[in-house]
Amino acid sequence: NAMYHVTLHHVCQSHFAYFWSNLPVKSYDGVRQSFVGPYRGEANPIAVERGTCSNSTACGWAPFGGLHVACDLLPGEEKEVVFVLGYCENMGEELAAFRTYRRAGSVGRAFAALKSHWNGTLERYRTDTPDPAVSSMVNIWNQYQCKTTFNWSRSASYYEAGGERGMGFRDSCQDTHGFAHQIPEKVRERLAEIASVQFPEGRAMHQYSPLTKKGNKEGYGDDHLWLILAVINYLKESGDFTFLDMVVPYNNGEAGTMYEHMVQALEYSWREIGHNGLPKAGFADWNDSLNLSGPNGMGESVMIAEQFVLCAKLCAMLAARINLRADSERFGVMAAVMNERINACAWDGAWYLRAFDDEGVPVGSHVNPEGKIWLNTQTWAVISGVADEMRGITVMDSVREHLFSPYGLHLFAPAYSSYHSNLGYVSIFPRGLKENGAIFCHTNPWAMIGEAMLGRGDFAFEYYKAILPTAHNDSAEIHWTEPYVYSQMIAGKDHPDFGQAKNSWLTGTAAWNFVAVSQYILGVKPDYDGLIIDPCIPKSWKKFTVTRRFRGSTYRIKVVNPAGKNRGVARIKVDGEEIAGNLLPLFSDGKRHAVQVTLG
Amino acid sequence: NAMYHVTLHHVCQSHFAYFWSNLPVKSYDGVRQSFVGPYRGEANPIAVERGTCSNSTACGWAPFGGLHVACDLLPGEEKEVVFVLGYCENMGEELAAFRTYRRAGSVGRAFAALKSHWNGTLERYRTDTPDPAVSSMVNIWNQYQCKTTFNWSRSASYYEAGGERGMGFRDSCQDTHGFAHQIPEKVRERLAEIASVQFPEGRAMHQYSPLTKKGNKEGYGDDHLWLILAVINYLKESGDFTFLDMVVPYNNGEAGTMYEHMVQALEYSWREIGHNGLPKAGFADWNDSLNLSGPNGMGESVMIAEQFVLCAKLCAMLAARINLRADSERFGVMAAVMNERINACAWDGAWYLRAFDDEGVPVGSHVNPEGKIWLNTQTWAVISGVADEMRGITVMDSVREHLFSPYGLHLFAPAYSSYHSNLGYVSIFPRGLKENGAIFCHTNPWAMIGEAMLGRGDFAFEYYKAILPTAHNDSAEIHWTEPYVYSQMIAGKDHPDFGQAKNSWLTGTAAWNFVAVSQYILGVKPDYDGLIIDPCIPKSWKKFTVTRRFRGSTYRIKVVNPAGKNRGVARIKVDGEEIAGNLLPLFSDGKRHAVQVTLG
Repeated sequence: NAMYHVTLHHVCQSHFAYFWSNLPVKSYDGVRQSFVGPYRGEANPIAVERGTCSNSTACGWAPFGGLHVACDLLPGEEKEVVFVLGYCENMGEELAAFRTYRRAGSVGRAFAALKSHWNGTLERYRTDTPDPAVSSMVNIWNQYQCKTTFNWSRSASYYEAGGERGMGFRDSCQDTHGFAHQIPEKVRERLAEIASVQFPEGRAMHQYSPLTKKGNKEGYGDDHLWLILAVINYLKESGDFTFLDMVVPYNNGEAGTMYEHMVQALEYSWREIGHNGLPKAGFADWNDSLNLSGPNGMGESVMIAEQFVLCAKLCAMLAARINLRADSERFGVMAAVMNERINACAWDGAWYLRAFDDEGVPVGSHVNPEGKIWLNTQTWAVISGVADEMRGITVMDSVREHLFSPYGLHLFAPAYSSYHSNLGYVSIFPRGLKENGAIFCHTNPWAMIGEAMLGRGDFAFEYYKAILPTAHNDSAEIHWTEPYVYSQMIAGKDHPDFGQAKNSWLTGTAAWNFVAVSQYILGVKPDYDGLIIDPCIPKSWKKFTVTRRFRGSTYRIKVVNPAGKNRGVARIKVDGEEIAGNLLPLFSDGKRHAVQVTLG
Repeated sequence: NAMYHVTLHHVCQSHFAYFWSNLPVKSYDGVRQSFVGPYRGEANPIAVERGTCSNSTACGWAPFGGLHVACDLLPGEEKEVVFVLGYCENMGEELAAFRTYRRAGSVGRAFAALKSHWNGTLERYRTDTPDPAVSSMVNIWNQYQCKTTFNWSRSASYYEAGGERGMGFRDSCQDTHGFAHQIPEKVRERLAEIASVQFPEGRAMHQYSPLTKKGNKEGYGDDHLWLILAVINYLKESGDFTFLDMVVPYNNGEAGTMYEHMVQALEYSWREIGHNGLPKAGFADWNDSLNLSGPNGMGESVMIAEQFVLCAKLCAMLAARINLRADSERFGVMAAVMNERINACAWDGAWYLRAFDDEGVPVGSHVNPEGKIWLNTQTWAVISGVADEMRGITVMDSVREHLFSPYGLHLFAPAYSSYHSNLGYVSIFPRGLKENGAIFCHTNPWAMIGEAMLGRGDFAFEYYKAILPTAHNDSAEIHWTEPYVYSQMIAGKDHPDFGQAKNSWLTGTAAWNFVAVSQYILGVKPDYDGLIIDPCIPKSWKKFTVTRRFRGSTYRIKVVNPAGKNRGVARIKVDGEEIAGNLLPLFSDGKRHAVQVTLG
């Protein structure tokens, strides 16, 4: 009753997939084309029309699993048939599954066990809010997608060719932000793996193969900085400072501690600067398609500069914490100097420039007819603290005025209508698609975080809802993709299909949205010494709850908002006792603790 | 009545495609999914079922052309409707086409003009043989495919991702062998383009982008040697020795004459040798999937060694011809020394080894249970003259015994049933597919050439017919691909779909088959000073003709075979006068010349 397909990848040549049923198999197809039929598609397979498969066996090309079983039903009768699709590493291992699932009852039990496994994983962060669309995304689908992006990165999907992309240095670092609370040990392992394609001088390979761990592609200006943010995020989740002492190889065989890897990353961007003293963009920064460096190799990225400021500040705090005072001081100075440079050269009046091109010409200025204002350098100005409160409010107001739409925030506006050799690929996509001024979802949570940091909870939540898949459940004819999965992009206002989402599943949107909603909107934020509670919610919310597993304890947090505030913790009681400030202490006792938070 | 689609590639942003009809358009679709419908395929498009398109306009993703026109037909009535699919570089240029093709009569005239254009191209080599399957392939389809492979190389097709592959150094060099007789000027231009991704030290980039001309990938052991063969083939076709003096850049900006490019290629393989003195294989030789060089980088390729011998001999002859005696002597010695090395280290008793792996272990020996005998080192032993006549007959008899099947000659036998790290990718394909022991069509013409050089015309022709697409017209259910196009491979005897062809159109098979049949079987072979006539045909053929345009004259060659020979020119008359030898002289007079050849 089973079909087998043996993989031929050389590192796992004994592995195989099987497809099995508990009913006798009357016919089968192992070759896609035999099942579908010539000049047909999945919509009208010949085997279904004919009522029987053709017993084809695949050997290469397009393997397929089709089993034909017979099942007579009387009027009103119900029967259960079991189909099992599985993967084993050694022949014979599948027999246990056949024995187990012979009866439908055992399938039900297996599904119950699976559900309980997922509940165990997902209950590490669980919320109940006044908005059911939010709760179902946070409690299930967003976390599920975070796990998927963490596992698969850009390795294999409908949209990505696995062999070519694999695990991204920058991508996978960011994916850990959405997964660290689920299984921190796996994040530790992954970060060490990623760090091993960094060069000793601090820069990094852009990606690596998950099978061979070999890196490829280089020359991006930002990859290495994402490692710093990911490691610090992991430390705050786990408290595992031993990780900083772990010796991890560099890409050339030399090695250094994880802390040294971080320092080298920081020093590289400090050293590799352009005419304005901002970090060089290299081939590209976060925006793969904004290719600023021409023959001079001198394009500068304001976004990398802002990232650098945040990284330097966080490293300064970390170094102080582990008693490396000289380091701490140096990093603090770096942050302050870069901060000043940005505010001196990149302030455009109502927002920050996006970059300087190879010739030093500003990109993203009010003088530009297209590509006038870009989202990322505004949000990161707030996130990094480069913008003081006044500039922060100014830039986020500009964002709202120029980039907001009911489908989310545009990457920039207006989109480019012709090719600009000083900007590169960004200007060759159709207007409003992909990097040419689409609603690039990955960047939207940074705006939510920025607004939450400014205390503007209604804006933060409005941005959150704008790209929330469950919020587009009733407009599938516009939105197109699955209403429970974040997509890479949504066509922007300059495109005729405004609102149409594309490339779901494998996108940094998943991780950052989870960070935005869980840490900044619902405001439960891991820190070295405990959980910081600082919600920034819509004024209309009267209350919500969050249950959070953290360092071995469970915090059951109830937040009430009697005064209809966006933000501001008035009072916190832990296990009935009022505490000072808004840092929930560590218990590490495996127990549950009741936390009552009053905003006001 | 027209739809437009503007390309967005940055170097040609004003270019566009159009789709037009001479009837009024009632509805249209520019988006594939709108025409096909959700959950449907091309087999059952919703627009056809519904009877109307949905007037969708593409802007990125999957552009599509669908025009709906109305046309009433009385019983028995015929009407002509014109559809024009076109591509223009400047808006407005298409209007001329609309004006021209408004009436069906002008379409007929355009087709007649197209036909006449093709006749003009194809009549440069035209044959009439006793076998109609041969004539139609040689006169039309094989030449058409040669033009297609020349133009497209591995740039874009059903099977190749254009951006990733582009023009192959090795591939495109070989493709010129099937196209030089059609438009030699284009071959000159292409070879200069290819040579410009060669390094000054002789080795070459493996491929380059046809748009940017930038090379990528390196480390193959053979790429550069194919340039030598292609240039010499071009010289023999065109007589254009000025090409040797043309200064062409190297990949690093330095430059050298084409002759220097060739010499550097030869010297590189002479220098980069392994333990047995054979050229190093690098990442791979012709067989991309035979990856012999491990940590020592010492894998040696017998095939490259044989290629080297042929290249060195041809360069020696060329150098002598252009009075570079020292060069000629040096190349002659190189050929002789490499010839001796091969015969000393690579003779296995009844055939030549294929290679030595990174540890020096022979590959392709009678002691190997799998991968025992490989085709290429036998055929190239004959082609290069490395095998003397006795060894030549021995190896080609071994080929016939171990590798021949009714669907063609296998790349090697038996296929590998498990992964061998010292051989690489070749051992991970399913048995009998692709490089793991399939009938890899590209290599079959080398056997035809080898047999023809040995005078065994029946074997040569049998091999020719075995993979001839027209010869499989009546077994499409086994052969699968178009019965007029060479495929990359045909599943071998170790695969359940033995005889099933895959990956048609873009394959080196096209060029080499045209060389084999036109120059070696029909035996009309360009040389520096004229056309060599030396057919090697089936004994059963009584006569055939070839009309060949060469250096501005047309040779109408009639061959008779009264004694039922395979090979051997007894007598040649040119314009009624008997000539000595079998070299037709150059006329370069634009006229037709009658040539009567008698075998005997």
